[in-house]
Amino acid sequence: MTVAGIATPVFTESEIRRTVAAIPPPQLIETIEEGFVAHSGGRAVIPPIAEMSFDAPPGDVHVKYGYLLADPCYVIKIASGFYDNPRRGLLVSQGMMLLFDRSTGVPVAVLLDNGYLTRIRTAVAGAIAAKWLAPSDVSCIGIVGSGVQARLQLLWLKAVLDAREAMVLSRSEDRAAAYARAMCEESFNVGIAANPQELGVKCDLIVTTTPSKRPLLRADDIRAGTHITAMGSDTLDKQELDPRILDRAHVVVADSREQARTRGEIAHALRQRLIDEDDLLELGDVISRKDPGRRSDAEITVADLTGVAVQDIQIAKAVCSHLGVGLDAGDAPGR
Amino acid sequence: MTVAGIATPVFTESEIRRTVAAIPPPQLIETIEEGFVAHSGGRAVIPPIAEMSFDAPPGDVHVKYGYLLADPCYVIKIASGFYDNPRRGLLVSQGMMLLFDRSTGVPVAVLLDNGYLTRIRTAVAGAIAAKWLAPSDVSCIGIVGSGVQARLQLLWLKAVLDAREAMVLSRSEDRAAAYARAMCEESFNVGIAANPQELGVKCDLIVTTTPSKRPLLRADDIRAGTHITAMGSDTLDKQELDPRILDRAHVVVADSREQARTRGEIAHALRQRLIDEDDLLELGDVISRKDPGRRSDAEITVADLTGVAVQDIQIAKAVCSHLGVGLDAGDAPGR
Repeated sequence: MTVAGIATPVFTESEIRRTVAAIPPPQLIETIEEGFVAHSGGRAVIPPIAEMSFDAPPGDVHVKYGYLLADPCYVIKIASGFYDNPRRGLLVSQGMMLLFDRSTGVPVAVLLDNGYLTRIRTAVAGAIAAKWLAPSDVSCIGIVGSGVQARLQLLWLKAVLDAREAMVLSRSEDRAAAYARAMCEESFNVGIAANPQELGVKCDLIVTTTPSKRPLLRADDIRAGTHITAMGSDTLDKQELDPRILDRAHVVVADSREQARTRGEIAHALRQRLIDEDDLLELGDVISRKDPGRRSDAEITVADLTGVAVQDIQIAKAVCSHLGVGLDAGDAPGR
Repeated sequence: MTVAGIATPVFTESEIRRTVAAIPPPQLIETIEEGFVAHSGGRAVIPPIAEMSFDAPPGDVHVKYGYLLADPCYVIKIASGFYDNPRRGLLVSQGMMLLFDRSTGVPVAVLLDNGYLTRIRTAVAGAIAAKWLAPSDVSCIGIVGSGVQARLQLLWLKAVLDAREAMVLSRSEDRAAAYARAMCEESFNVGIAANPQELGVKCDLIVTTTPSKRPLLRADDIRAGTHITAMGSDTLDKQELDPRILDRAHVVVADSREQARTRGEIAHALRQRLIDEDDLLELGDVISRKDPGRRSDAEITVADLTGVAVQDIQIAKAVCSHLGVGLDAGDAPGR
């Protein structure tokens, strides 16, 4: 595909899936941890998210973009969620990732991943949150939601936790059963929770993965020592947790303090003045041990992840590196 | 390139260039006029521009995106300007255009145009501004700058004006001479202006195309009856016109009133309170004849174009249509 002097490699979803499968999970976790640490340490440029919403059918598109100061490239990631997609046989999440030479603007790679890398980096962030914030001995993992991200979250927790007992809470009994069967093949023993109370009583690590617009878990549902990673809400109108859970929590961690002001569970709790912005920690600062995170197995901890461009930047670079794509376009004549 | 059920057609710069060459200029002008009219009539969704700036080497990236309410797709356009690129044998402007199904988020086409379509739609907008605002009998066209956009502007004016006399003003004598030679091959007779005064005295249609950060034309340089299209400034720090030119002008037209508040020549004039926002017209309203535009050949008119996503949306759709690409991904099973 060499045209007018510029040849931009384009990779398809299947090529990208094979590449990700070839990266050892701990390596991808570490790469994305480095992104969070760079972000919290002020060594990444992450402008505000660009976005559009649609009504009929309902959907939203986010453009997340930026670069690490040390990088030769910048990354622009397009990710959409169209919630009626499953009726058409499509995944809710779609999109692509684009890498550009930071010295020239020349595109260095187009990753036509159809949302796959966004789903993976989101699941990796869940594993990272659990790695740094879960109680020392997780007995049972609770998953709220039974979709693609619900599966990926549990799979990626394998890389950081020994627990293989899990419970799923889903609006649909059929989907909950399908989820339990699928995860059984991945060596998890998954029970179906009748209600949020049962999930809260049995689980000490809970991951919420839905696009719900009203709280699914109440503060009374959560037992001491639980860690919750709230993944689903990435806008102001989405919400999975009763904000009083954040009030009750000893530690509340955002992936991005900046984004948490206007998105996700933290934004709801801040608006209701249940928590104070000064009390928020940032995931990168917990990873770098600048901030302590959880201090005992009796504490309740919450990680509210709205998704930060550093995750996209790091996974896009990792994929390109494994594909042998240089991250700057170079000075070769004619380029 | 069929992967995991989704096949996204990817087009290269040479395919895109051939496609644009096959579209009659009046048709492309009309298509982009329709975009401006939809924008000014509130029938387009155009969120604020997303952007990043770079220092070393100097550059900026804009993400412009949106859709017409009547469209089955939305468009995301990435355009960068890296001003040291020519030293590397590269054009300053780079980028790509992406079209997505508005019902599902599935990408319907990737146009790897390396900034070509942005350059064309920018030149087309210059032709549109001249078509609606130039005096009735243009004798000599003045071009400020001698780069790629300076050439394209003059070429596209052919579609709307009979004048073939032109003058170029450039910091570099060599580039001015090269410009004059190149435009001679396009049947223009191009003289080289010694200074802005000479350009202003001889020309009654002036197009400014530079990334200058200080005014290149003064109010005294401009004669009665002149129309100026200011193309170069698309950020707050770029400026090609003395803001008093806008004060002196009888008609000041923005491609987007919203963007003009913070970008381009109008933003400078507004800040200095030389013009009032209520007096601004919008190009789409002039095209639709909602607003009168120029009322006599003695008036000075200014069109300040910062570049609006509707231009990108319209040219991207036109190219896809000529390439036979459907603008929605359809409901075919497995897609």
